[in-house]
Amino acid sequence: MQTFNNKTFNCVGINNTISVIRSKRFQIEKVLIIKNSKADKDKRLYSALKLIDRNLVQKVGDKKLLSNFKTQGVLITFSGNLISDEFSDLEKNEDICLLVLDRLEDPQNFGQIIRTAECAGIDGIIYSRHHSVPLNETVLQVSQGAFVNMKFYEVTNIRNELIKLKNNNFWVVGLENSINARPWYSIDYSGNTAIVFGSEGNGIRKKILETCDFTATIPMQGFTNSLNVSAATSAIIFEMLRQKLEKK
Amino acid sequence: MQTFNNKTFNCVGINNTISVIRSKRFQIEKVLIIKNSKADKDKRLYSALKLIDRNLVQKVGDKKLLSNFKTQGVLITFSGNLISDEFSDLEKNEDICLLVLDRLEDPQNFGQIIRTAECAGIDGIIYSRHHSVPLNETVLQVSQGAFVNMKFYEVTNIRNELIKLKNNNFWVVGLENSINARPWYSIDYSGNTAIVFGSEGNGIRKKILETCDFTATIPMQGFTNSLNVSAATSAIIFEMLRQKLEKK
Repeated sequence: MQTFNNKTFNCVGINNTISVIRSKRFQIEKVLIIKNSKADKDKRLYSALKLIDRNLVQKVGDKKLLSNFKTQGVLITFSGNLISDEFSDLEKNEDICLLVLDRLEDPQNFGQIIRTAECAGIDGIIYSRHHSVPLNETVLQVSQGAFVNMKFYEVTNIRNELIKLKNNNFWVVGLENSINARPWYSIDYSGNTAIVFGSEGNGIRKKILETCDFTATIPMQGFTNSLNVSAATSAIIFEMLRQKLEKK
Repeated sequence: MQTFNNKTFNCVGINNTISVIRSKRFQIEKVLIIKNSKADKDKRLYSALKLIDRNLVQKVGDKKLLSNFKTQGVLITFSGNLISDEFSDLEKNEDICLLVLDRLEDPQNFGQIIRTAECAGIDGIIYSRHHSVPLNETVLQVSQGAFVNMKFYEVTNIRNELIKLKNNNFWVVGLENSINARPWYSIDYSGNTAIVFGSEGNGIRKKILETCDFTATIPMQGFTNSLNVSAATSAIIFEMLRQKLEKK
């Protein structure tokens, strides 16, 4: 773990708390448990708490925290660095899949994408440092603990990163409804792949789209014309997983 | 449109407002537009507004509404019946696909599922009247206008409905990680199909699972073990769409 760029975060919920503790990636500052809450009765949580200094665990009777059902009666405060340095720390050498988020705006979408990506075995997420939702507490919260098992790369220039990736044997696929776009399932996602998703309002920026080797589209079947970006991510990465599992 | 069971709803946002007006399914009570907001400058919105009595449109200067970015500066009040009666009103006779939600709890998930389902050409959504999130304003809001193009069936006993569907030539698939579950992509979704999704915490209830002809699973590739139900829905219904489009 890097010592610079350390930040302190709060997360609530049983899954988040267990994930943060079990990852052993973070300095745990405090775990607050509401007496008689769902968390207070959770065996998995108490088994995870054995891994940390018991003085860090405080039991309290705060009804306010308890009434917010999302907390489930537990809040963890921890510090550490969530952002990875260079792609070189990706351990495996083949069939790496990275997601690239071009100026995503909504923390709900970012958090959901992290959760889905982790479930589908995605190796890392690249996102732009500017004009994007940062990796904040809402994002971590929505990810339901999945963030501890995901590598994040915060970059200043997405296009430059894509060019670097292409020079390192990556294929770059952009999800965008353009003239040359092919149905999402007709693209071969084997080998090292980076999949680019655009912002909720504006899609992928032109300069970045030009860097993509392929453009994928999900043809809409209904009257409305806007699939949520996290739903689109799910469709694409589970198609990639299908292709991988069917090959085995 | 049925005249009983009519309710009044409020929705905000440009997409929602346009969808509600263009569907012609509802009685429009009022459209509130904030001066100089994003909505006030939107040509698509103003083109939709031509379809209704101009006395129903009010322009106001309320800064409070404007500051909430989700409103985009427009609120529509409308009344009507969102819920369909019997499956018999499904127009097409083959390859009908219905989603069945067994006690979904989270309005965000319900809304996202409606939006994704509409984009993927799903014909209707069955959900339980009791112990489920109802079709409320949050759900409609999150669906981003997709609800106007979706048929909803609110039922008291999901198991009975599934039996009825089976008697009407439907295959019933449940998404649940059970011993007999097959990978989601190895199931043939052609013909009339109902796909059952369980609640966020507890999955599909046992009695309902027993009614399913097949059980599908999405094998988790990461350390966390919980795919969000709306992400899982997206994975499954776009796999179904892939199978349909590849056959053409």
